Amino acid sequence: MHARSAHRSLLIVGSVALDDIDGPFGLHKDLLGGSASFIGRAAAYFSRNVSVVGVVGDDFPQRHVDELTEMGVDVSGIERAPGETFHWVGRYAPDLATRETLDTRLGVFGDFQPKLTEAHKDAQLVLLGNIDPALQLDVLRQVRSPTLVAADTMNLWINIKREDLVNTLAKVHTLMVNDEEARQLADEHNLRRAAAKIMKLGPTSLIIKRGDAGALLFHGGGVFAAPAMPLADVKDPTGAGDSFAGGLMGYLAYAGDLSPSTIRTAMIMGSVMGSFAVEQFSVDGLRGLTTARIQQRFDELAELAHFERVRL
Amino acid sequence: MHARSAHRSLLIVGSVALDDIDGPFGLHKDLLGGSASFIGRAAAYFSRNVSVVGVVGDDFPQRHVDELTEMGVDVSGIERAPGETFHWVGRYAPDLATRETLDTRLGVFGDFQPKLTEAHKDAQLVLLGNIDPALQLDVLRQVRSPTLVAADTMNLWINIKREDLVNTLAKVHTLMVNDEEARQLADEHNLRRAAAKIMKLGPTSLIIKRGDAGALLFHGGGVFAAPAMPLADVKDPTGAGDSFAGGLMGYLAYAGDLSPSTIRTAMIMGSVMGSFAVEQFSVDGLRGLTTARIQQRFDELAELAHFERVRL
Repeated sequence: MHARSAHRSLLIVGSVALDDIDGPFGLHKDLLGGSASFIGRAAAYFSRNVSVVGVVGDDFPQRHVDELTEMGVDVSGIERAPGETFHWVGRYAPDLATRETLDTRLGVFGDFQPKLTEAHKDAQLVLLGNIDPALQLDVLRQVRSPTLVAADTMNLWINIKREDLVNTLAKVHTLMVNDEEARQLADEHNLRRAAAKIMKLGPTSLIIKRGDAGALLFHGGGVFAAPAMPLADVKDPTGAGDSFAGGLMGYLAYAGDLSPSTIRTAMIMGSVMGSFAVEQFSVDGLRGLTTARIQQRFDELAELAHFERVRL
Repeated sequence: MHARSAHRSLLIVGSVALDDIDGPFGLHKDLLGGSASFIGRAAAYFSRNVSVVGVVGDDFPQRHVDELTEMGVDVSGIERAPGETFHWVGRYAPDLATRETLDTRLGVFGDFQPKLTEAHKDAQLVLLGNIDPALQLDVLRQVRSPTLVAADTMNLWINIKREDLVNTLAKVHTLMVNDEEARQLADEHNLRRAAAKIMKLGPTSLIIKRGDAGALLFHGGGVFAAPAMPLADVKDPTGAGDSFAGGLMGYLAYAGDLSPSTIRTAMIMGSVMGSFAVEQFSVDGLRGLTTARIQQRFDELAELAHFERVRL
């Protein structure tokens, strides 16, 4: 799928982290994590025009950066700063259904100030990973005329930075959050009503990620439900939502249009990449994939969701 | 859709109850409830050949029985016994996402012994609502040669009557349970692996109902994911799963075949009827529907789930 010549440019701004993850498969330390790590790798399978902006500390293994380069990703926006890389420590419940944060050390991420190069400022598609909404807004002030701005956020920002978040949302086309975040942001349990409230804040479309229940796309024209692949082996749900976002935005960069039909297909590509991500630890599930394997899982999801339209 | 002449016969055996339901919309007393009440009404929209077997007490309003008759359902199997009708008292959380049982009075249902008429014994499709698995097995001993036997069960029976349940499952083609029940029955959190374990107990297909996350069908040929309609107004989730089962089995009785394609369509008809049920209290959402409204919601679900197959 890299044959197509003119992929739209996709700019990803997010965290790059090292994670310690405990759970039913034991403790794994210093795993590569962070939203931009998953998004960039997932998107790279679809587009040759992907750039990542982020910051790492002087403890960050260069091989992780080199790997992105080998995947065709522009890493000129990954800054290396003196200090520790952002570090997340978490523990999953035995059934992997819930997790708790044991420790968060911001390190160099605490002083992160995204500075875009001239090339990055011309990005056509922008994906703002889950960073401080004030930084997200700062990025949006730097880009010139993106066709599509998508953003993620989290409970922390909804709680302590709601005003900044509302300012950012006014400039975001597509918000991607999970169901609990949507409910918290809208102060409304019903997802359809929550979506309507959130879209009044600015976004013209809203994607609600529901883990193994798939994802919902709300937009002017209606609702689309993307199924998730029921997987027999799930090792690490970390990064599932970011991999979804990367697959979705990468496919949009590849497809070159933003028609409702293309966006639905992009949601399925997101579901495909999320499914690969959770089958392995860290970004391992996003390594060594081929177009054929991605196509195969897309086809499986199409078969999973297919039914005949009948008339009663 | 009642024009088709030869609907297969559908026999429903289940509870008929009066419910007191408390929750965000206040306390509602003596609502018509019970699995057979929802299943029978949902199925009646699809087939003219539906029979309900159950028991009610001398306190049960005759109008509920008459309504079924008016909907074309054979109620000759609804026995009226001296004593109180099965009574369930429950309370929903403010967000309707969870509920607790406050009281259960079995009444005449405690001595329920389904006795099938000769006509009922010839049923082609049998749906065993959520009753004691020993009673389910007793029904299966009475029917002669059903094409399809589907059954529901619940946590209570999984806990206290597992041996009876296992004996019943050996004779059931399709088990319909919710996700928590599937996990408990299989002692396995992962739904795909739980499905494989449950199908080793007998059923050749398993339907896992997931509320507003839709339903999964596992069968020899693979997996089908039926979406749920995201609804802005949900009043009472009671009976959603039974309405799903009624729509599904009613459509199968109407369609007259059990091909994989027909079963997928039947799952969507189940999702349609479940969505109508939860929009109102008790069985109110299943009253006064028309073929046009059912078709419209089917079409909405088809649109909700539709995406183009692409090649990368």
